[in-house]
Amino acid sequence: MKEIKITAPATIANLVCGFDILGMALKAPYDEMTLSLSDDSGIRIRHTDDYNLPESAEDNVAGVALKALMEDPIAVGLKKSIGFDLTVHKNIKPGSGLGSSAASSAGAVFAANHLLGNIFSKEDLVRFAMNGEKLAGGVKHADNVSPCIFGGVTLIRSIFPLDIIPLNSPDLFVTIVHPQIEVRTSDARQILRKEVQLKDAIRQWGNIGGLIMGFTNNDPALIGRSLEDVLIEPVRSILIPAFDEVKQKCKEAGALGGGISGSGPSIFMMSEEESTAKKIEEIMQKIYEQIGVEYKTYVTGINPEGVKIVESW
Amino acid sequence: MKEIKITAPATIANLVCGFDILGMALKAPYDEMTLSLSDDSGIRIRHTDDYNLPESAEDNVAGVALKALMEDPIAVGLKKSIGFDLTVHKNIKPGSGLGSSAASSAGAVFAANHLLGNIFSKEDLVRFAMNGEKLAGGVKHADNVSPCIFGGVTLIRSIFPLDIIPLNSPDLFVTIVHPQIEVRTSDARQILRKEVQLKDAIRQWGNIGGLIMGFTNNDPALIGRSLEDVLIEPVRSILIPAFDEVKQKCKEAGALGGGISGSGPSIFMMSEEESTAKKIEEIMQKIYEQIGVEYKTYVTGINPEGVKIVESW
Repeated sequence: MKEIKITAPATIANLVCGFDILGMALKAPYDEMTLSLSDDSGIRIRHTDDYNLPESAEDNVAGVALKALMEDPIAVGLKKSIGFDLTVHKNIKPGSGLGSSAASSAGAVFAANHLLGNIFSKEDLVRFAMNGEKLAGGVKHADNVSPCIFGGVTLIRSIFPLDIIPLNSPDLFVTIVHPQIEVRTSDARQILRKEVQLKDAIRQWGNIGGLIMGFTNNDPALIGRSLEDVLIEPVRSILIPAFDEVKQKCKEAGALGGGISGSGPSIFMMSEEESTAKKIEEIMQKIYEQIGVEYKTYVTGINPEGVKIVESW
Repeated sequence: MKEIKITAPATIANLVCGFDILGMALKAPYDEMTLSLSDDSGIRIRHTDDYNLPESAEDNVAGVALKALMEDPIAVGLKKSIGFDLTVHKNIKPGSGLGSSAASSAGAVFAANHLLGNIFSKEDLVRFAMNGEKLAGGVKHADNVSPCIFGGVTLIRSIFPLDIIPLNSPDLFVTIVHPQIEVRTSDARQILRKEVQLKDAIRQWGNIGGLIMGFTNNDPALIGRSLEDVLIEPVRSILIPAFDEVKQKCKEAGALGGGISGSGPSIFMMSEEESTAKKIEEIMQKIYEQIGVEYKTYVTGINPEGVKIVESW
């Protein structure tokens, strides 16, 4: 196999209460990537989208992820000259809070692993892809790259050492609004308090347990009750215009619950029925029309598969 | 039905990382209780053990739990004079950290509910029994009474409103040592810091998620990795002589992991094999012999059933 075409999906990190430990893959939007194995060592990247991302390997998140893979002892042990040519067409807008950098990093190493004969485990791929996350946001985190690679919902018990537990992913609908404002991940991290009240932490881990069991037991009502964040959302939501109004009106309209996607500015809401998910999209559209903030919306679902092979030669 | 005899098991609250939200029922030790329904209103309590506990209903944890049940609108709606005669033989030593007060409270209301024709849900019984916990420790908490009533392992997502999620309970062995020193629940709560580092809280909820999935997936290795408490144990363990040595030597001998039971002073360790659980008992015995602290040990298992009816007339 010399060439592979894949799609790498958007992901929602944190899932409201599960800051830094939970993430979920979406059916849409997704990036499209084509990777070719070459005898010419080195990594050559080309973007066919309009996001003006750096194409030099050391400045591109997919590039640093691929480099980490190539420098792993297993790849080095192949004792042959390896090079990659990567073409990326991003549909997940950078800075949306929908795991754009994770899709690039995870998609690239997933594709490379296939071309090399699947010599790496999924955990290995997450480790490589986290290098892309570090380049993008300054911190090695796995809550976007894990669901992108594993699919569905994943729990990251620990990053050092890496301990990923795939969860059951129920068949729910997800509505997303991406208000077109910029919230930098580093800023969103900066404004968090370093210390939290023990009583709030206890409430948070009760909700985390509830959310995990809601997914496990396919219990939408329990998922809804557990989608509460008493620590991060109250601080971060001030960076997102109309956040409280969106959340309140969507829940009134029947959404199970939701909140900030990753570090924002996108907001997601989960629903049992597609009709509810579409009604919620209209509510979101109306709110941002009224306040005059440009936006983009999606009605999608949980993606149990993650990165997907479209074609290979 | 006029009279019922039940056993009410010991329970382990917190389960290391799950402070205030997780609890587990044990096969042993357990209290024995006989409850009779009477036309003479009021609650009469007699203890046949040597723990010198108060027998007046308003000072006895089982008494206040029964009182809460009798004052519930459903019981009041029966429109008949209800009284109870309760005989308690405690085997779970008060102040052991093994849910002694919870066994009294939960056992009494479970028995009463049976005599009244099971008019209450298990959640109702937990609500009533929490009144006993408040009398014993000053705080309404459910992490002992829930597993006592539901059996197995329970997650308490929230206390107000009460939201209990029963978890799968794997077939593991539990070794317990109860050093015969006094640690008051109120003292153990007092020494905790009111604020915690966000990074520690994140590590804690990663472990909580891991532990819940370890139980769910019957994954002893994951249970072992997740039995880590970076917030409470480092503070509370200083009240328990030889804690660090017990934990280290038991893990070296093959225990999956463990820690303080409830607020202590008992220490529990979980094992996959009975032979390991017995070896760990010997290690615990040896340590407390050496430092000259009196102790009691148990080798037992997870009790999937909770309060159990022995006989009813």
